[in-house]
Amino acid sequence: MKTAVLGYGTVGKGVYEMLRSAKDLEQGPVLVRKGKADEPWKTDDFDAVLADDSLNAVAEAIGGIDPAFDYAMKTLKAGKHFVTANKALVAEKGSELQAAADESGAAFLFSAACGGGVPLLHNLALSQRGDGILKVSGILNGTTNYMLDRMQRFGTDYEAALKMAQEMGYAEADPSADVSGLDALRKVILAAGTAFGILPSGGLHEGIESFTAEDIRFYQSKGLVLRLIAQTERTAGGVSCFTEPVLFPDNAPEAAVLENNNLASYEGRCCGKISLMGQGAGRYPTASALIRDLESVLSGERRMFPEGLKQAEADHDSVKRRYLVRLPEEAKEQLPCDEVQGKEGAYLRILTGAIPVNRMHEAARKIREKGGRIAFAALEE
Amino acid sequence: MKTAVLGYGTVGKGVYEMLRSAKDLEQGPVLVRKGKADEPWKTDDFDAVLADDSLNAVAEAIGGIDPAFDYAMKTLKAGKHFVTANKALVAEKGSELQAAADESGAAFLFSAACGGGVPLLHNLALSQRGDGILKVSGILNGTTNYMLDRMQRFGTDYEAALKMAQEMGYAEADPSADVSGLDALRKVILAAGTAFGILPSGGLHEGIESFTAEDIRFYQSKGLVLRLIAQTERTAGGVSCFTEPVLFPDNAPEAAVLENNNLASYEGRCCGKISLMGQGAGRYPTASALIRDLESVLSGERRMFPEGLKQAEADHDSVKRRYLVRLPEEAKEQLPCDEVQGKEGAYLRILTGAIPVNRMHEAARKIREKGGRIAFAALEE
Repeated sequence: MKTAVLGYGTVGKGVYEMLRSAKDLEQGPVLVRKGKADEPWKTDDFDAVLADDSLNAVAEAIGGIDPAFDYAMKTLKAGKHFVTANKALVAEKGSELQAAADESGAAFLFSAACGGGVPLLHNLALSQRGDGILKVSGILNGTTNYMLDRMQRFGTDYEAALKMAQEMGYAEADPSADVSGLDALRKVILAAGTAFGILPSGGLHEGIESFTAEDIRFYQSKGLVLRLIAQTERTAGGVSCFTEPVLFPDNAPEAAVLENNNLASYEGRCCGKISLMGQGAGRYPTASALIRDLESVLSGERRMFPEGLKQAEADHDSVKRRYLVRLPEEAKEQLPCDEVQGKEGAYLRILTGAIPVNRMHEAARKIREKGGRIAFAALEE
Repeated sequence: MKTAVLGYGTVGKGVYEMLRSAKDLEQGPVLVRKGKADEPWKTDDFDAVLADDSLNAVAEAIGGIDPAFDYAMKTLKAGKHFVTANKALVAEKGSELQAAADESGAAFLFSAACGGGVPLLHNLALSQRGDGILKVSGILNGTTNYMLDRMQRFGTDYEAALKMAQEMGYAEADPSADVSGLDALRKVILAAGTAFGILPSGGLHEGIESFTAEDIRFYQSKGLVLRLIAQTERTAGGVSCFTEPVLFPDNAPEAAVLENNNLASYEGRCCGKISLMGQGAGRYPTASALIRDLESVLSGERRMFPEGLKQAEADHDSVKRRYLVRLPEEAKEQLPCDEVQGKEGAYLRILTGAIPVNRMHEAARKIREKGGRIAFAALEE
């Protein structure tokens, strides 16, 4: 199956290399930016790539919506298979792309967009068909897990942990999508689409930017380990979808996920809880996921999203949790306090009663608007 | 896809039930023992089941070689798809069944035979195609993990832990296949076939029968947790394949696998190490794996074993490990002792140098032949 590669960055290079050694796959041209086609197998003309009748598939590793969306639609409309590692593209334009794929009969697969080497979406798609999925959750961002692990095991402070993540090549120069939880939110939107046939909009994301070395020490004194968790589940009101920090007992499997690893779990109606762990990102893990999708196309796979994919507003009223919160003493009234756990200067540490997820995120937004500093994490119970 | 179910025990019942609610699957007849067909949808006549032209597939949940092998061959030769949870059947007769499937073009899938709800074989098959797999290992027997977990966390002795496993329905009345490591060995043989295209014969298995509550306490004093690990990897001499007890640091992911859960890991050339965790057995996890295989058939999957499947003698000379051994003092000379770690009556606890796996298993066999009691576990390093 002759496959063109869009983009020649970290992942694109890996895919092009792996295409050479894969048994049933064949290297097509590599699309690069205008004027950068400095090798005979590189090109900057997408339409010429697509015009080649011998081309069967396109693997996209450019990132972003524009021009990736345009290339994707043209590929699928031409009846050629499209596999991608681009989570923003699929989270935002998934319905349109799936519709185009359905019309032409081409495959549209994106397991590389969530979990890198960890085959979460692929397994969700498979389990969804015969079983039915109730909930998906996990550590879906390797950069922030690396940082939290540093802070946890080595007492590193936030800024130093971020710098180390950048030096290791895990964090971008602009790390905001990672540390704000947006990256993990996009991934769990894809998981919701694959597991439930619903692409939720209006998902909430709280990241790890508010945590200090002191917070981590406080959690450790209680036997708790902090992780950034993305989660989606069927609720009374539809489907919830959010990312937030969560505290786990130090003997929980999540606490044993170190470095930049991912851990994703799903609960099937019949298969019970299944967890997948591995390296969430990096050239070869992500490239291998794109190759895996191409191999799946050869085995007959055509889709990850179930038929009848819909978009819907996420429901955050029905999921209730207790939160351990550090907040300015004068903001205390904004949350139902179950127990004051400590006082540090003008700040209190409180444990809330069980409150809806959106109430917690909203309270934090309001406190920050007034210039207050707040950090919160749900208790895994 | 109309699917007959062979057997109406724990798993067969679950499959029949799940077939009703799966979207693209249809309940066919259920084959039961002669004279036991007490419902119109049950039958004791296999040839009549197969003679029905509208039948597309057979899901086998009888167990054992005879008559399962006969039914499997007839099914595949008739060009109907065959999915099974029967590890003994596939470990022993996998090559013949694959050849029959190749000839007729029918699907032959068996992901339910290893890991129950945990989709290990399915993911191995997928990764093997585009990536290449170096090693597969893990906790593949839920019964023994339940027992070791009891011994570890509650100080239960071996006999009491076995009785509890039987009461919970995890262990059979005759638990020998589980506690001797044979069950896990059969599973890892299937993993080797799927990952490497080689079905190894002559695999070694050491189980958990030799361990006492005192052994577990000794390991705990060293910060170590005992697990039963099945493993296969590419070696200088081909492929290794064995089951043996292994000691992990108490913060390792394996130490966090509690109750009757499984944890299976594989290392891809490109995807890195990926781990899968979940319930390894039970009605619904195993039934859901059979249903998942049927759904995969509908998506176009036809095989788990790669093309050109071979049988070969396992290689145990090239894998070397250090072992923590409790043995009679007079048997000490039979193993290269690196360090004596303790003395209890007539027994020594020693740490060996790095020795080949088969040398350790062979030494234990000889010591036991002479009536000596020995327990050994490899150090995960």
